[in-house]
Amino acid sequence: MTLPFRLILASASSARRDLLTRAGYDFDVIPANIDEPSGVSFCDPRTFVQHTAWLKAAAVAGRLELEPSGCPTLVLSADTIGWLGDQVIGKPADRDDARRILRQLSGREHELWTGVCLWRRPGDWQVAWQEVSRVFMRPMSDAELEIYLDSRQWEGCSGAYAIQEQNDPYIELRQGSLTNVIGLPMETCSMMLRWIASISSHL
Amino acid sequence: MTLPFRLILASASSARRDLLTRAGYDFDVIPANIDEPSGVSFCDPRTFVQHTAWLKAAAVAGRLELEPSGCPTLVLSADTIGWLGDQVIGKPADRDDARRILRQLSGREHELWTGVCLWRRPGDWQVAWQEVSRVFMRPMSDAELEIYLDSRQWEGCSGAYAIQEQNDPYIELRQGSLTNVIGLPMETCSMMLRWIASISSHL
Repeated sequence: MTLPFRLILASASSARRDLLTRAGYDFDVIPANIDEPSGVSFCDPRTFVQHTAWLKAAAVAGRLELEPSGCPTLVLSADTIGWLGDQVIGKPADRDDARRILRQLSGREHELWTGVCLWRRPGDWQVAWQEVSRVFMRPMSDAELEIYLDSRQWEGCSGAYAIQEQNDPYIELRQGSLTNVIGLPMETCSMMLRWIASISSHL
Repeated sequence: MTLPFRLILASASSARRDLLTRAGYDFDVIPANIDEPSGVSFCDPRTFVQHTAWLKAAAVAGRLELEPSGCPTLVLSADTIGWLGDQVIGKPADRDDARRILRQLSGREHELWTGVCLWRRPGDWQVAWQEVSRVFMRPMSDAELEIYLDSRQWEGCSGAYAIQEQNDPYIELRQGSLTNVIGLPMETCSMMLRWIASISSHL
């Protein structure tokens, strides 16, 4: 899809890159590389993912040179967390941490929150939203858990798992967007990108 | 101006109310009444005002019932701070604090930052931006300072002053929007409201 601006994905996530590519967008990748804020000062997941996504977009937008061609730029950033009870389920530090997280999620429903921020240059205004999906993890036996850990699918993933788009043996989407669970809610992303494209000539 | 949504100003500020009224908007007022976050964890003014404005909009949006009529709602929140050197100039706690702040600003240039957040319901997406104006405060003598303090114009104002729109004896706008200094950058506000109105039927 041809957009009337240069699109930059401010994320090192290959899952997000794949989602955008499959949706037909052309874009460049500039990871934000910020220290993600610790969760202690946020009591709710919406505020957490909004703030982190905004900081990521700000970091990349702040580094951008304006295009000499005059073509505007849109920076797309996202932050995804798992949320169980009243706390963040982060990315596992190592295999033991992944085991601990998966035992916690096994046989229960949890939430996945993604905050998305689109930062437009010039103008430096932002469009942002936050999306939640509800996911159930079927109970894993100890043997299944070790096989899953061997697969290393948990590496770098919030909640220590990467959902498979079809017939995932453990993860069942109960509510919300599947691509949101993967890391970027494409239904609303596409809508917002179309929307910003439609008004881009007036700005 | 007739908007295709209900507009809510999430601010107790009479200056913001006046600006919106004079621009011809119909709106309701629901102050956010949040504890403004302390500045310690933010090293830059843009992040500070963005975060506070977002929290204000979230607080009011979270309290809203959706309109039974199906009419969408737009919550408008803003946060303004003064910024001198590398620190926030807040609202004065009392007369002594106002004197201390005005002495600090006197004869110097400082920045005023406003973060604006427009929160749309249903959909719960946000449009946000942050604006800076540069202001010079002419030197005040001790006698002038006490007269100014007597006037109580500093009460509840970031930077301990309220700029007069014409021929302010002390405050000189050097760069940016005047209404931004008052508390709401109306030029961009009007543009953003028009823009959201124009796409509102597609959402």
